Amino acid sequence: MFIKNTWYVAGWDYELIDGALLARTILNEKILLYKGADNAVVAMEDRCCHRGAALSQGRLEGNCVRCMYHGLLFDNTGACVEIPGQESIPPSLKVRSYPVETVGRLVWIWMGDKALANKADIPEFEYLTNPEWHGMPGYMHYKSNYQLITDNLADINHIAYVHTNTLGGSENYIAEQTQTPMERLENGFKLTKYHLNSDLPPFVRKFVKHMPKVDRWNTVKMLVPGFFFLESGFSPVGNGIEKGNREGSISFRNFQAMTPESETTTHFFWVYMHNQREDVDQISRSLSASILEGFYEDKAIIEKQQEVLDADPAFPLRAIAADAALSHLRWVVDQKIKKERAAA
Amino acid sequence: MFIKNTWYVAGWDYELIDGALLARTILNEKILLYKGADNAVVAMEDRCCHRGAALSQGRLEGNCVRCMYHGLLFDNTGACVEIPGQESIPPSLKVRSYPVETVGRLVWIWMGDKALANKADIPEFEYLTNPEWHGMPGYMHYKSNYQLITDNLADINHIAYVHTNTLGGSENYIAEQTQTPMERLENGFKLTKYHLNSDLPPFVRKFVKHMPKVDRWNTVKMLVPGFFFLESGFSPVGNGIEKGNREGSISFRNFQAMTPESETTTHFFWVYMHNQREDVDQISRSLSASILEGFYEDKAIIEKQQEVLDADPAFPLRAIAADAALSHLRWVVDQKIKKERAAA
Amino acid sequence: MFIKNTWYVAGWDYELIDGALLARTILNEKILLYKGADNAVVAMEDRCCHRGAALSQGRLEGNCVRCMYHGLLFDNTGACVEIPGQESIPPSLKVRSYPVETVGRLVWIWMGDKALANKADIPEFEYLTNPEWHGMPGYMHYKSNYQLITDNLADINHIAYVHTNTLGGSENYIAEQTQTPMERLENGFKLTKYHLNSDLPPFVRKFVKHMPKVDRWNTVKMLVPGFFFLESGFSPVGNGIEKGNREGSISFRNFQAMTPESETTTHFFWVYMHNQREDVDQISRSLSASILEGFYEDKAIIEKQQEVLDADPAFPLRAIAADAALSHLRWVVDQKIKKERAAA
Repeated sequence: MFIKNTWYVAGWDYELIDGALLARTILNEKILLYKGADNAVVAMEDRCCHRGAALSQGRLEGNCVRCMYHGLLFDNTGACVEIPGQESIPPSLKVRSYPVETVGRLVWIWMGDKALANKADIPEFEYLTNPEWHGMPGYMHYKSNYQLITDNLADINHIAYVHTNTLGGSENYIAEQTQTPMERLENGFKLTKYHLNSDLPPFVRKFVKHMPKVDRWNTVKMLVPGFFFLESGFSPVGNGIEKGNREGSISFRNFQAMTPESETTTHFFWVYMHNQREDVDQISRSLSASILEGFYEDKAIIEKQQEVLDADPAFPLRAIAADAALSHLRWVVDQKIKKERAAA
Repeated sequence: MFIKNTWYVAGWDYELIDGALLARTILNEKILLYKGADNAVVAMEDRCCHRGAALSQGRLEGNCVRCMYHGLLFDNTGACVEIPGQESIPPSLKVRSYPVETVGRLVWIWMGDKALANKADIPEFEYLTNPEWHGMPGYMHYKSNYQLITDNLADINHIAYVHTNTLGGSENYIAEQTQTPMERLENGFKLTKYHLNSDLPPFVRKFVKHMPKVDRWNTVKMLVPGFFFLESGFSPVGNGIEKGNREGSISFRNFQAMTPESETTTHFFWVYMHNQREDVDQISRSLSASILEGFYEDKAIIEKQQEVLDADPAFPLRAIAADAALSHLRWVVDQKIKKERAAA
Repeated sequence: MFIKNTWYVAGWDYELIDGALLARTILNEKILLYKGADNAVVAMEDRCCHRGAALSQGRLEGNCVRCMYHGLLFDNTGACVEIPGQESIPPSLKVRSYPVETVGRLVWIWMGDKALANKADIPEFEYLTNPEWHGMPGYMHYKSNYQLITDNLADINHIAYVHTNTLGGSENYIAEQTQTPMERLENGFKLTKYHLNSDLPPFVRKFVKHMPKVDRWNTVKMLVPGFFFLESGFSPVGNGIEKGNREGSISFRNFQAMTPESETTTHFFWVYMHNQREDVDQISRSLSASILEGFYEDKAIIEKQQEVLDADPAFPLRAIAADAALSHLRWVVDQKIKKERAAA
């Protein structure tokens, strides 16, 4: 069960260069993504309407794609425009196409009712196109439901135990951090956590040498179905980050998007960005490697968690106080699914 | 759902030399095939009637096979003839045996009612035992239903797009070819396609250098459940192949047999033969390698097609004009299955 | 369907040294096994009650284990004793713990009603802690139901065909052996087989050179659900082993325990022991390697048998005379399961 009338990330724009025919399953539907000669991105059913051959094994021809089984040609709306050896083409010979947009270096797809698709609703991560911010786009395939990943992100206290030696830095993070009240948004939530007079976490210590002790902040915004926006920073101790003073600090921007492939697998897109002016590429690479190390720590736990939950679907989860944000997110998702079902 | 009262290819005769106990699943039934001391081929259930051990893990003893778990010995009719440590043998201790014949270097098995098995019904491919014709027997395991393979063969126009650079030669094949009306047979169909003034396809160009342009013909006969007989030839341009003149031409004989292993997997047997008198083995090897290259092109499309169809069993296929032959074949199969069911 | 109110082997004691958190699925339940600072073995659900993370990915802290996802700490009764960042702990936050005992170098677990667990019911194999007996503990993972393995052991005549060249020695074993009547036990059976004037089997010939011909005996005791106790010996010919004379003989003790992992997979623990006084370790290693060679012969047949049975659940097995012991064992198991169900 997924929200259908919403934008999902289908891929990075770089995945479609050079005439690629990208096959990707999204919400259990097999999708073909490509960029035609007119430079517009196309998303259509990856299944020829004739005998079910995969169009991603076909050939790009201008703005069209040709099925390389019997040669049927489809335009970028999914209509069949040529059948070799046959003159008339019945209008039933077409494949489904999907609304698709490129915003912020990401390709976005709308899996629901076309009439409701509105480009303005795409939750853009503005730093991706800001020339002052730098980072390497990442992709991971997860063997878990997307909500086990959003659960994980909704309580960043997990950095204390999961990421002690990578992204966190101290098991005392949970006890020592303070946080603003969670701001409930219509589509998610927002909150900031402070950790004063803390050590720099390992992933930043690799290239920041002048601040042994810091005041740390993490401003998290999450939106359903699966978007995570983070502003993270480290300031000289005592500057007053709680009052908004960012002077002398070093900060990062992080975006993560989870797109369901199936009920038990997920496409995970992410980027971690910095605005340093020297050693720009070296720092991007260091961050990318560090974050990946941390993400593999998450992946090991979450994929095992999926396996445990699958083994006993009747297992009742027990909430703790720190679950407020994840509970809110799951509640919003459930409401949206109910609403879609009622309308249908 | 398969036709049961029909002959299927169970293997090549060379697979049973040297006392091999060959395990092969056919129509979802586990079968043991072997050649006893009397040189007769035997096909029986590959499952000891005692505790279900696989007889293919046993030992050939004369015309019998011994289960190497507890030592029960079965003769070539499937009857248990020895239980170590036990004097009397209840007649219920037997395994099922199947009618089996060796015809044309192929081992044929009858999976249905024994009383209906008639050796004369085996669709022999006479060239396999004709000393003037040469070719290498081939086997492939397919992850698809056998009918997706017969569909493919029923419209050889697919050589235009799938095999352009191997067995086909030109994407214009479909537009430029002409064909005789399909002759509907009780058990299949027959037709001939002509492609005049065409280029030699890549697989023939490898060893035929003296005919840059040719008139090409393909005479296809297909029989249910899954047999494909092809006479294929290339004549000097303008000789009149449509009128049956084969003078100066080079021609080939091709046989393909598809035997269901399960609903989604298939045993695929094939041979591609020539009657050249020089470089006989070199040409056989060249043809075998070229055809295999083409068959891997089919396999990639068809196995993906199976995957696509499995993902959405409700998907409605849309026919095109070129589907006449495959539709006829599928109709014949359906009629036969219905008739068998009605009789049962 | 398994007997629940009974002791199963969960592991060897050596598997829990050095603070290991051992994850093992038993009767389809995911279990965590460890030895706390107090040296007592603990068995608990391998699933955090909060979000289902695997506790075996956690950290041992004294007698407790900490979930390394959000830091919840559980004591050795399964009670949650710490939630980082939260003061009060609802009593519902606990994981299930299981009665567990270490007896005879083996860790035993009780999967049923705790109130019925009685350490005295553990079927100890006394030789494991007897300093005069030596052997190497073994473990194998089986892709079969545990009863296909107990079936195999219940008729040791299978050594004639399965283990001719390893543990058996002669295909005539079945014809030439004699046996005492099977003694039906409440929980299993017991019997002795004699094979007079036989050759030493290959696994003994490796280190016993002075007895070319021997009288052999095998005293088998089996208990449900899956325990096999064997006293095996080889005497100078004509000493009168049937009357109990063991003089001048060499003998072995063998224990095998089968613990269901799932309906189609099994944990298999075993040890083969000798009481020689010279070359002690060499003989232990030789025996371990020989027995393992034989066990792989069993495994090949039994795992294939599982595959054959899975393919056709309606297949009716046909009993032979040698099945008396296995039939009795299966009957005892069925009775116990029925009794447990009736009580529930």
